[in-house]
Amino acid sequence: MLTLVCEDRVGIVAAVSRFLADRGGFITDSQQYADRESGRFFMRVAFEATDSRMDGGTEWLRTEFTPTGDRFAMDWRLTDIGERPRILIAVSKGSHCLADLLHRWQTGTLAVDIMGVVSNHPDMRRITEWHGIPYHELPPNGDKAAQEAALLDIFDRTRSDYLVLARYMQVLSEELAGKLIGRCINIHHSFLPGFKGARPYHRAHERGVKLIGATAHFVTADLDEGPIIEQAVERIDHRATAEDMVRIGRDIETQVLARAVRWIADRRVLLNGCKTVIFR
Amino acid sequence: MLTLVCEDRVGIVAAVSRFLADRGGFITDSQQYADRESGRFFMRVAFEATDSRMDGGTEWLRTEFTPTGDRFAMDWRLTDIGERPRILIAVSKGSHCLADLLHRWQTGTLAVDIMGVVSNHPDMRRITEWHGIPYHELPPNGDKAAQEAALLDIFDRTRSDYLVLARYMQVLSEELAGKLIGRCINIHHSFLPGFKGARPYHRAHERGVKLIGATAHFVTADLDEGPIIEQAVERIDHRATAEDMVRIGRDIETQVLARAVRWIADRRVLLNGCKTVIFR
Amino acid sequence: MLTLVCEDRVGIVAAVSRFLADRGGFITDSQQYADRESGRFFMRVAFEATDSRMDGGTEWLRTEFTPTGDRFAMDWRLTDIGERPRILIAVSKGSHCLADLLHRWQTGTLAVDIMGVVSNHPDMRRITEWHGIPYHELPPNGDKAAQEAALLDIFDRTRSDYLVLARYMQVLSEELAGKLIGRCINIHHSFLPGFKGARPYHRAHERGVKLIGATAHFVTADLDEGPIIEQAVERIDHRATAEDMVRIGRDIETQVLARAVRWIADRRVLLNGCKTVIFR
Amino acid sequence: MLTLVCEDRVGIVAAVSRFLADRGGFITDSQQYADRESGRFFMRVAFEATDSRMDGGTEWLRTEFTPTGDRFAMDWRLTDIGERPRILIAVSKGSHCLADLLHRWQTGTLAVDIMGVVSNHPDMRRITEWHGIPYHELPPNGDKAAQEAALLDIFDRTRSDYLVLARYMQVLSEELAGKLIGRCINIHHSFLPGFKGARPYHRAHERGVKLIGATAHFVTADLDEGPIIEQAVERIDHRATAEDMVRIGRDIETQVLARAVRWIADRRVLLNGCKTVIFR
Repeated sequence: MLTLVCEDRVGIVAAVSRFLADRGGFITDSQQYADRESGRFFMRVAFEATDSRMDGGTEWLRTEFTPTGDRFAMDWRLTDIGERPRILIAVSKGSHCLADLLHRWQTGTLAVDIMGVVSNHPDMRRITEWHGIPYHELPPNGDKAAQEAALLDIFDRTRSDYLVLARYMQVLSEELAGKLIGRCINIHHSFLPGFKGARPYHRAHERGVKLIGATAHFVTADLDEGPIIEQAVERIDHRATAEDMVRIGRDIETQVLARAVRWIADRRVLLNGCKTVIFR
Repeated sequence: MLTLVCEDRVGIVAAVSRFLADRGGFITDSQQYADRESGRFFMRVAFEATDSRMDGGTEWLRTEFTPTGDRFAMDWRLTDIGERPRILIAVSKGSHCLADLLHRWQTGTLAVDIMGVVSNHPDMRRITEWHGIPYHELPPNGDKAAQEAALLDIFDRTRSDYLVLARYMQVLSEELAGKLIGRCINIHHSFLPGFKGARPYHRAHERGVKLIGATAHFVTADLDEGPIIEQAVERIDHRATAEDMVRIGRDIETQVLARAVRWIADRRVLLNGCKTVIFR
Repeated sequence: MLTLVCEDRVGIVAAVSRFLADRGGFITDSQQYADRESGRFFMRVAFEATDSRMDGGTEWLRTEFTPTGDRFAMDWRLTDIGERPRILIAVSKGSHCLADLLHRWQTGTLAVDIMGVVSNHPDMRRITEWHGIPYHELPPNGDKAAQEAALLDIFDRTRSDYLVLARYMQVLSEELAGKLIGRCINIHHSFLPGFKGARPYHRAHERGVKLIGATAHFVTADLDEGPIIEQAVERIDHRATAEDMVRIGRDIETQVLARAVRWIADRRVLLNGCKTVIFR
Repeated sequence: MLTLVCEDRVGIVAAVSRFLADRGGFITDSQQYADRESGRFFMRVAFEATDSRMDGGTEWLRTEFTPTGDRFAMDWRLTDIGERPRILIAVSKGSHCLADLLHRWQTGTLAVDIMGVVSNHPDMRRITEWHGIPYHELPPNGDKAAQEAALLDIFDRTRSDYLVLARYMQVLSEELAGKLIGRCINIHHSFLPGFKGARPYHRAHERGVKLIGATAHFVTADLDEGPIIEQAVERIDHRATAEDMVRIGRDIETQVLARAVRWIADRRVLLNGCKTVIFR
């Protein structure tokens, strides 16, 4: 699997496809997107070896591709399809997203390696350890810098690729968000119109919205404002209480986060400034 | 058809249903909603006469119901099912909502009387008059007060019940919005997150939203913030240009406004403070 | 909470609401539906005691209501809101619906009592028992009558109200289906157009459908054809493999079955011949 | 714009992208799909000239591409983006799809040329001619062969590319369907489960479905069974009458057919046996 981003110009697809064809690479899926506004070109190519020309393996192929990547000044990545991203999950007390991710992982429908679960509460220890996953409790003892340092240490020690905030109710510091840029995913509620701040479901309820939704996005220093990966909504009516809205919202959050993590695992998500390109 | 709003207490449904049963009224549809927070009770009852006891007609029935209405301090309305609301449509240059409303009206699938179309532009005259509807051009000649006075005069002269802003790109003055409170419906785009101000589709495009939608709502002095009647969304991906988003948004706006007007026509929409109760 | 079905005629709502008002019953939610075709009337009333007149409790209220019920030949049911339906779950090897129901039950978002899980396979024992629920393995040893007798015995012994087939891949005999009429719920895939028989996702894939869905329904002797409780769909495109379709279908099945069981728990589902009335 | 279908093998993308790069063709959008089951490869490439090397025009480019097309035994098509497909619309009495297509065409949001409207009824003449489109009435006078011959004659004389059945309630003969294979699009209702034959909405109503939908598909001799282009559904509940279902179904049919025609116009639809590949 090859993903790449570079400045758009004539000949990129020709160069990449010729590179693969010359080595017996059979393209099983290829998607491109050229953003006319930013002038950036995005490509995702899945391919298979058809003969012995690719026996050198992924490392050999990376060396072979380097001149092509350099020629077009590509930001490229060549991975074996069997390589699963290593994810660390952060959670507070809400179990819906965590339980869903663990169940999908356990039943083999989510191709990631879960390296651990970190939490500022003890509540999710039991379900996490039942799945055989290490649980790291990082209580909020007033020293946020220390808590974040511990989190980052676990992230680094486990060589995690992504931090998934599965209803983690702590705002990351600007510093930590900066270190994890493009590698930290969050899920939050979404409404029409939007509601920032505390108790959003209750405020959406007061406003009488007819749709409630959720957004999965990359985390940036600006809370709830990073590049959007996926969104979905559900219809409600005037009889929905704030509690109903919380419950329905939980189901949407669960589905939307699971989809975002799956697409990350499949390397379908590429960053495009403050937007994403999703090759579905 | 009877709709009513009053303070919630024991015995309302009993009183209303006894009133109808005593006069041979057969309930064909009845919906209630008690808002626990505001303590208000909402009810919509559709009924038919089963014998001659109701031969007195709607006017007679209103007189009969008055004591019951007074006893519970109800805000009530009793109408004949054949009474169609009279609507005045305001439009600027965008034809999608207007053409759709006219087509539904012409084919008999929208039970309203269209009293006329007002516009600040000449563009929609041809299609309006082809449908046999009077077209009133109110050019924006700098005197907004005069323009609004003319609009209100047409509204009053045609004895219209509702003003439907079908992509009318003029902001109503606080004064006019106040006069038409609960009688003026608007349609506008909606996004997650929301975007206020100019060129919203372009800004949503810059932000990379994955869903675009539309909201039909009652107009209040606070632009785009009145009680919501209906909302819907459509999914897009990174390839959608701002122009695609405008086009998809138009289709959603058309559908959402048509639904809102239909529900108004069926007396399914009751105001509940800054929210609505929709008896679907 | 009172639910009732009877022949439609003048005065039912008046009688029920008067009955409640006379005993200080405050209606918190009431929904009715009159089916013009069958002439049947359906009602669901949730109410609270406002004073000591209802201190006699549910049993006393049932005695009080009996004359009214008799007068209109009602099929009625009066339950305390705290009474949770007792459900028995049947499952084969697919864990998605079972894991979801257990998680919702454990986190208190599904107001049922799970009396046990029966299965024709051992696979789901571990997750079931981890939740503290008894697991009954009923291996298919060639004697289907004995297997069904054992299942019915567990259903009766646990005094279960409903049997929920959460991907139970055994067809119930006509006899068992008949005994559980209106008390057994199934979930199955749904497509446009429909596909009966084996490997439906693969056949839908061959046909190139653009939507896949799921239906929760009451079980009747005619497999997959009982009264529909809930349906939902998800959009796919030509790139979806049969395996993708199975996976997406699993998510929809999970959501749809959870909704159906919730509505059953809230007594929102009434049977209307081969259809359902769902008071949402 | 180049679309092509051929047997999948190594080097196709490389050959096509090299062909374009060598002539200064800048790829603005490119999508591929390899069907593992059929072994067919599908591609759609939109490109622009960056310099004078493409001044020879579309005809010249076709000649240039022929050797490449021959080498891979491609079924290919190279068109100028400004070439609009010529469509002939067939309609009976239901105006919803026709009015919508005419309005989109008139407002420039549907990039097709409408060559005429044929009908077995006089009803749609007025709206068609108001849009300046010729109306051909082909009354069903008992001689179906003559009627179809007249239809085909209009199709040929107007050099139409596609026949769009916009609620045309005449079944095409096997012979006519065969002549128009891949060039005739139909819209019809869709339900879960499906209902064939007369009065489908009424039968779906009797069955108590919770979703109703529509399918746009290519016409084959087997009625309502050709390759599916697009599908959509809408949610209903038990209160929906058969008439409501017809009305809601009309809205979905309108939207789904408009999308299918737009994708045809954009050359986004390729046939893959009894399925379609839709490059959205």
